[in-house]
Amino acid sequence: MKNKIFLSLTLLGILSTSLAQPPGQNPIMLKDMGSFHVGGREVELKGLPVKDVKFTVGSAKVDPNGMYQVEQLYAQYYIQQNPKGKLPLLMWHGGGLTGATWETTPDGREGFLNYFLRQGWTIYNSDAPERGRAGWARYPEITKTDPVFLTKNNPFERFRIGAGPGSYNKDVNKMKALPGNQFPLEGYDNFTKQIVPRWTSTDEPTIAAYIALVDRVCPCVIMSHSQSGLFAYKVAQARPDKVKALVMLEPAGVGDIATARLLKNTPSISIYGDYVDQDPRWQKGRANNMTFQAAIRSAGGIADLVNLPDTGIKGNSHMLMMDRNNNEVASLIQKWLTKHNLYQQ
Amino acid sequence: MKNKIFLSLTLLGILSTSLAQPPGQNPIMLKDMGSFHVGGREVELKGLPVKDVKFTVGSAKVDPNGMYQVEQLYAQYYIQQNPKGKLPLLMWHGGGLTGATWETTPDGREGFLNYFLRQGWTIYNSDAPERGRAGWARYPEITKTDPVFLTKNNPFERFRIGAGPGSYNKDVNKMKALPGNQFPLEGYDNFTKQIVPRWTSTDEPTIAAYIALVDRVCPCVIMSHSQSGLFAYKVAQARPDKVKALVMLEPAGVGDIATARLLKNTPSISIYGDYVDQDPRWQKGRANNMTFQAAIRSAGGIADLVNLPDTGIKGNSHMLMMDRNNNEVASLIQKWLTKHNLYQQ
Repeated sequence: MKNKIFLSLTLLGILSTSLAQPPGQNPIMLKDMGSFHVGGREVELKGLPVKDVKFTVGSAKVDPNGMYQVEQLYAQYYIQQNPKGKLPLLMWHGGGLTGATWETTPDGREGFLNYFLRQGWTIYNSDAPERGRAGWARYPEITKTDPVFLTKNNPFERFRIGAGPGSYNKDVNKMKALPGNQFPLEGYDNFTKQIVPRWTSTDEPTIAAYIALVDRVCPCVIMSHSQSGLFAYKVAQARPDKVKALVMLEPAGVGDIATARLLKNTPSISIYGDYVDQDPRWQKGRANNMTFQAAIRSAGGIADLVNLPDTGIKGNSHMLMMDRNNNEVASLIQKWLTKHNLYQQ
Repeated sequence: MKNKIFLSLTLLGILSTSLAQPPGQNPIMLKDMGSFHVGGREVELKGLPVKDVKFTVGSAKVDPNGMYQVEQLYAQYYIQQNPKGKLPLLMWHGGGLTGATWETTPDGREGFLNYFLRQGWTIYNSDAPERGRAGWARYPEITKTDPVFLTKNNPFERFRIGAGPGSYNKDVNKMKALPGNQFPLEGYDNFTKQIVPRWTSTDEPTIAAYIALVDRVCPCVIMSHSQSGLFAYKVAQARPDKVKALVMLEPAGVGDIATARLLKNTPSISIYGDYVDQDPRWQKGRANNMTFQAAIRSAGGIADLVNLPDTGIKGNSHMLMMDRNNNEVASLIQKWLTKHNLYQQ
């Protein structure tokens, strides 16, 4: 009897709670969440001088010689209590960025991580080797090149937010955005806080770490952005049985065209924002991808391409998961995944 | 009628789900989750040479001169659907580490983040400036010193897992752990994957960023570990009205003793693991803290200290949130917070 009353109250509590939510804002209900590191290798350094380093409590001699753990990947997971996605969705960020790409937008709206969690997808959001919670290796001893640090104006001018060189200004009112641009300009300053140093010589260890991730958690769907488009294609070619679909957001690179047939059972969709036709660099990237996609289709595979403006979704920058109309883009992806039988309706 | 049937089915679904969970493993139900960056400053660099950098798509000239965004902090938040903690709980990691500290343990068990989420606390888990998703600044131009990289053996021998220098071995069976040590040795290799480069000259910008975090999300309770003990005390002294309690896990530093009275309304508990009496460095840290705590108490404040072995919780390393008995430590903290009226029973 006591139990019965307790259950009734509990049910009423849950009921009133769920009725109180605005539509589309039901609670995120997770069976589990957590994180892990995967992949990487050990490297031994020798012959470096011992250094005296001051710590919070006293100083200590630090001998830099010895074994280092490097090039691992960090993944954070959110396991649905009641999954509706048939497979886990892996989110892979672009160059100079981390998993924060998919989280809250720089102006404080919900990003793709929350959108797809609220749709019922189990998600693995990762930081690739060399950035974020994955850490980075000593250079030039282990990573052979110097990192690149971006100035505040660089992404503004290069990511099709602003109208090219000189378009950035610290004062939001003086920024020269591309006409109709959907990037939330008032959040641009915040966006620059999530940019991290990057290397341009680390493709090989990064691919190895992503393969280790796929081996651990797939079969799955991979959603990639920009730099990680290259990684997503190549990893899918290395593990075609495990990568069941690819969502490619403005991929900056493609896979190995000689073995494009390996993707014949991995449907993919490539999505491009606005203003690509005005920028030779992005045009070239898209043209490369179209060639690669044609090779997949020749082998009998599905490789769709969507230029968002053609569908009426206009004004998207390279950071389309952060743009004001990000939910429209997410909804298009959700429909494509549903069409390919990856979602329980 | 249709609605009624729908509701009944929904309720049955929720009911059967909640009955299916093992005790203490109810779903994590979040009203919202997300992340933001906060704090930091802009720095201008001048007179550096332009570099030609190879990117995935072609190469581009990168001009390193200009404005940089540096020293911000990253915070990830989990807002309870039905909060039981009366205030948000902020989790601050130690030196050379990130917010991953609080997540899944290196051997795959639930860490403190999940423990306190499942208890109903709203949590902000952060990466301090210079590490993780907070990013790091160019050195020596912005951060004036070199980072410290730890070899795989270093934490093993320094964090009271192993019996001092020479105790580490890659082979788990050959590791010389302190007798009765609770650190999960089979997860040590994984643990080294979450270690990130650290600087020892960045206390000032780190404290500034933590203050920006507190100004944004508090009143709150702060849980600190090791290096961030120094930051937690100092930030609480800077914002005594906003920091309502401090949980100090083996703090490596203390606040400003001349103004210890500022903490007279901020109850704190300092918790130490095992083997401290065998290690002069940790003994000294604890002695410093005891002096600081005495000053707080002289001003009428509450500053508790628990040596875990005295309470029967034995074998804890410096990484007590990862040790096999981490739930016992978490439970002790939960009881202390409840006793101080910070939790709805």
